[in-house]
Amino acid sequence: MSERRSRAEHVVAVADLAGTFVFAVEGALTAISAGLDPIGVLVLAFLTALGGGLLRDLLIGATPPAAISNWAYSVLVVASATGTWFLHPHLHGLPANLLAFDAAGLSLFAVAGTQKCLDRGLHPVVAIFVGPISAVGGGALRDIVINQTPRVLREDIYATAALLAAVLIVAGRALRLPARPLMITAGLAAFALRMAAVHYGWRLPTPPQ
Amino acid sequence: MSERRSRAEHVVAVADLAGTFVFAVEGALTAISAGLDPIGVLVLAFLTALGGGLLRDLLIGATPPAAISNWAYSVLVVASATGTWFLHPHLHGLPANLLAFDAAGLSLFAVAGTQKCLDRGLHPVVAIFVGPISAVGGGALRDIVINQTPRVLREDIYATAALLAAVLIVAGRALRLPARPLMITAGLAAFALRMAAVHYGWRLPTPPQ
Amino acid sequence: MSERRSRAEHVVAVADLAGTFVFAVEGALTAISAGLDPIGVLVLAFLTALGGGLLRDLLIGATPPAAISNWAYSVLVVASATGTWFLHPHLHGLPANLLAFDAAGLSLFAVAGTQKCLDRGLHPVVAIFVGPISAVGGGALRDIVINQTPRVLREDIYATAALLAAVLIVAGRALRLPARPLMITAGLAAFALRMAAVHYGWRLPTPPQ
Repeated sequence: MSERRSRAEHVVAVADLAGTFVFAVEGALTAISAGLDPIGVLVLAFLTALGGGLLRDLLIGATPPAAISNWAYSVLVVASATGTWFLHPHLHGLPANLLAFDAAGLSLFAVAGTQKCLDRGLHPVVAIFVGPISAVGGGALRDIVINQTPRVLREDIYATAALLAAVLIVAGRALRLPARPLMITAGLAAFALRMAAVHYGWRLPTPPQ
Repeated sequence: MSERRSRAEHVVAVADLAGTFVFAVEGALTAISAGLDPIGVLVLAFLTALGGGLLRDLLIGATPPAAISNWAYSVLVVASATGTWFLHPHLHGLPANLLAFDAAGLSLFAVAGTQKCLDRGLHPVVAIFVGPISAVGGGALRDIVINQTPRVLREDIYATAALLAAVLIVAGRALRLPARPLMITAGLAAFALRMAAVHYGWRLPTPPQ
Repeated sequence: MSERRSRAEHVVAVADLAGTFVFAVEGALTAISAGLDPIGVLVLAFLTALGGGLLRDLLIGATPPAAISNWAYSVLVVASATGTWFLHPHLHGLPANLLAFDAAGLSLFAVAGTQKCLDRGLHPVVAIFVGPISAVGGGALRDIVINQTPRVLREDIYATAALLAAVLIVAGRALRLPARPLMITAGLAAFALRMAAVHYGWRLPTPPQ
């Protein structure tokens, strides 16, 4: 039981750091395309990478948030943003792959966020809504700061993919499925749904008139 | 004394849930008029209904916030948003009544928010400013997310009505007036001021030149 | 040691209140130039003056935040906003001096914020990034609410000046320099860098192409 728990925590930690790296690079690229200076690049990298987790931790009362109490997050964001700054001219194919990159970060954070909410004893119904905030919150904060409508409102199957991961984790936990395979499956399902939606142009229904 | 206190808490709980329902419907209607998909409807319903209370609870250190620790809020928002989605084509008169609807939510949250601040032992001067945040915060967050100037900055007698309720509650409590009639009176006063301001086009003075 | 500590805390408290006054006046002037009513003036004064400190305190888990637990902040903001409302027609030279005024608030908050983070036991690497949030956060929230791109993203040497103060304080503390002269030096360095950048039009490098 203890070993199972520590394995689950290990997956959460890895998913959280991987998502942080992915979103820091994405935030830095957004800032660079917008022609911002190094500070703007740093601010958008921090917001995109850590904003969602900070929101989640503030909401569930996990203070100080992991991104604050653990200096590894700050160092990882600064390193990712600096690397992106110097390497981006050589990343020719990246814009085309940015959607897959972003979908990976979305799935990683949806899994880590939902799991963390459940570990803190949140009611599963609440975890389904708060967990995905880790996934979509950072990008939403970044978009708000640069005066764009957040992607979560513009693209139909974005928060939906994060919600899918959250529902799978909550349901699988209720069925006592093993934690690590469950998290990996939920993350892959969210990633597949997001990529399929982008590729096939899937849309959610509009309101009845 | 204990009964009086429990009565006051009962009014706060009812006002809080009623305000949540009202603002969830309003947020959902905003999203539907903007042509958003179901996720956008859900996001705006959550932000409008729970954003103000979340801000208040984070500020006064009541973590995890009521909207997180009690699953009834999430369920109520999802149910209200879903009902609005399917019923809105039949609600022909609603746009005309939306202002009254919004004024009701504003007054309910101003009363519940101020009372909660005082119950947590906040200084009355601070409660006068933090209480109304429950009332105007959710709508402000929604407006910021969809890139509109928040109503609290656009309409003169909006936060003013919430401030009126807060001042009445703080003053009435200092005079040891009975809690339940005091809250009901403060709520009705805020509602009346807001509706009169809309009806007669009252405006606050502009700065001296 | 105890006396040295209490002196450091005294400088922090004075810097925090002075910064609050400066930013409350600046927020009120922003609202007045935008033609907002008294409530809008109050909202922008509160956001600009207290928003950065609130963000910092929420992030480091210092809840309820100082601005909430101490009524002096609310009273100071209301008094500053009211004074600005009535006196602004006589402040002819102010727009020209507003940049210096803002640079002073920026430096005061950068010093007080970083010091507070270190006093709470934050890791110095994290304090370097969270401390300046006190300095730039309030103005950023104000700009977001009125749908402008935050100054921290538009002006190159703005957050940079706050970062300079934070780095100096963290480095000076590691070298065990005396707290009060260290804070005053860090604040003056940030102020000088910001004013020189405005005067000479210094800019940070843009990304390599």
